[in-house]
Amino acid sequence: MQIKLANSYGFCFGVKRAIEIAEKSSGAVTYGALIHNPLEIERLKNNYNVGYVDSLDKIDTNKIIIRTHGITKEDKEQLESQGKELIDATCPFVTKPQEIVKEMSENGYDVVIFGDINHPEVKGVKSYSKNQNRTFVVLNVDELKNIKLKEKIAVVAQTTRKISEFLKIVNFLVENHKEVRVFNTICNATFENQDAVKELSKEADIMIIIGGKNSSNTKQLYLISKENCNDSYLIENADELKPEWFKNKNLCGVSAGASTPEWLIQNIIKKIKQIKDYNE
Amino acid sequence: MQIKLANSYGFCFGVKRAIEIAEKSSGAVTYGALIHNPLEIERLKNNYNVGYVDSLDKIDTNKIIIRTHGITKEDKEQLESQGKELIDATCPFVTKPQEIVKEMSENGYDVVIFGDINHPEVKGVKSYSKNQNRTFVVLNVDELKNIKLKEKIAVVAQTTRKISEFLKIVNFLVENHKEVRVFNTICNATFENQDAVKELSKEADIMIIIGGKNSSNTKQLYLISKENCNDSYLIENADELKPEWFKNKNLCGVSAGASTPEWLIQNIIKKIKQIKDYNE
Repeated sequence: MQIKLANSYGFCFGVKRAIEIAEKSSGAVTYGALIHNPLEIERLKNNYNVGYVDSLDKIDTNKIIIRTHGITKEDKEQLESQGKELIDATCPFVTKPQEIVKEMSENGYDVVIFGDINHPEVKGVKSYSKNQNRTFVVLNVDELKNIKLKEKIAVVAQTTRKISEFLKIVNFLVENHKEVRVFNTICNATFENQDAVKELSKEADIMIIIGGKNSSNTKQLYLISKENCNDSYLIENADELKPEWFKNKNLCGVSAGASTPEWLIQNIIKKIKQIKDYNE
Repeated sequence: MQIKLANSYGFCFGVKRAIEIAEKSSGAVTYGALIHNPLEIERLKNNYNVGYVDSLDKIDTNKIIIRTHGITKEDKEQLESQGKELIDATCPFVTKPQEIVKEMSENGYDVVIFGDINHPEVKGVKSYSKNQNRTFVVLNVDELKNIKLKEKIAVVAQTTRKISEFLKIVNFLVENHKEVRVFNTICNATFENQDAVKELSKEADIMIIIGGKNSSNTKQLYLISKENCNDSYLIENADELKPEWFKNKNLCGVSAGASTPEWLIQNIIKKIKQIKDYNE
């Protein structure tokens, strides 16, 4: 069995940048996990003394790292009012939709955010709207149908969403409204990892997608892979690999979400090789 | 054989308005045909003394009617400089994309017009751009692929185009550019006639679409009809009907383009009834 890595996988620009920032911020805590990967969070704690807390009340240090997904405007203001030192590791691709939502809401547009209302990035982006009552988070066209929108609409997307799903939202809006100002805020890294997994999953007969199970972009990679290769598996670490998955397989494709560190990917590839040797 | 009219067909708001304006403008000429229907043009000449001319040089009256499709900014300025009295029958749904193209080009957007570069409406709309070099008329995605566009794009449509084709253009732009400002300038009347012909052509076994053969929206109706009902015919007048078309047919659907007058539709229905009686 051959093992092949997708042409593009793993850490994106924003995550690499956030980790570099964290590695230089010994003694700081991140508010919420810096990235969606528990093993990387552990490494930062053990090797760089960078912890994380889940709620604002629990912060007992003076240095707070704002994570890649960003935080809400209100949380940021609260931290500033407490005199905390804020180290901003928000991905610039997330800062962008925050700015767009602020500007469009100021200009009288109804704002549609395509994404998951429970995702911290989306919560942060929405918080920047100047008109919360006219800012709507939707995951699909059915949700849109329940909203009475004005004639002028601006639409942005959570950075890690699938473009094909975003286009469904856009098409429904364009069909039914006079002006739709579409900001494609889906980030290129997501595109590139998605394209590469699509390509690879067409030739592979087993696909291993590595990433945190609470990571939205990893789940998207898994779904794209599953479309082309029925034997696709989403795993967080090497222990989850099962030898029987690899029996009679010729090509094992490997990809990883945007918050999966390289060291973890290499560990898993090593383990797959061992299983392969055992199977053969 | 039953004969059934589509739920929505024929004259739209803009055409009705233009004809009313023309009927009150005895002695005027329209620059270009007022609407895309030769028989209606003849009626206006005979009953209301409203002629038309093909080129600016041929105008020998002082009163000029600007037709529903609008004219170019340059032609308008030339006529004004000659001291002509301009009677504006431009459809308000056409004035809208003219204004949008002007405003967006002033604001630094690359402008994409989805339509036929040879159509007078499109020529008129394009002429309002303040940056002709950054204003592009395209009929399909392949044409778009040949153009290197900036990151900020505004897109409008010729009012009589199919929304599904417009969405292909929009989707390509959204997939490849950061900001796409989509103005859905396709007019509702076109939608309504299209929806109705789609519906009717699914149940009919012969479809007669009435309209000028140089009328873009009539051709669209014909194409939609043809998708569902293979025996679809586009005719301009009753003489074109062929008895053999109607043999062994149960339901004849009838629709008409946005510039087809009611009296013509009724004439044709009368003729179909005669053929039917002859066949039976």
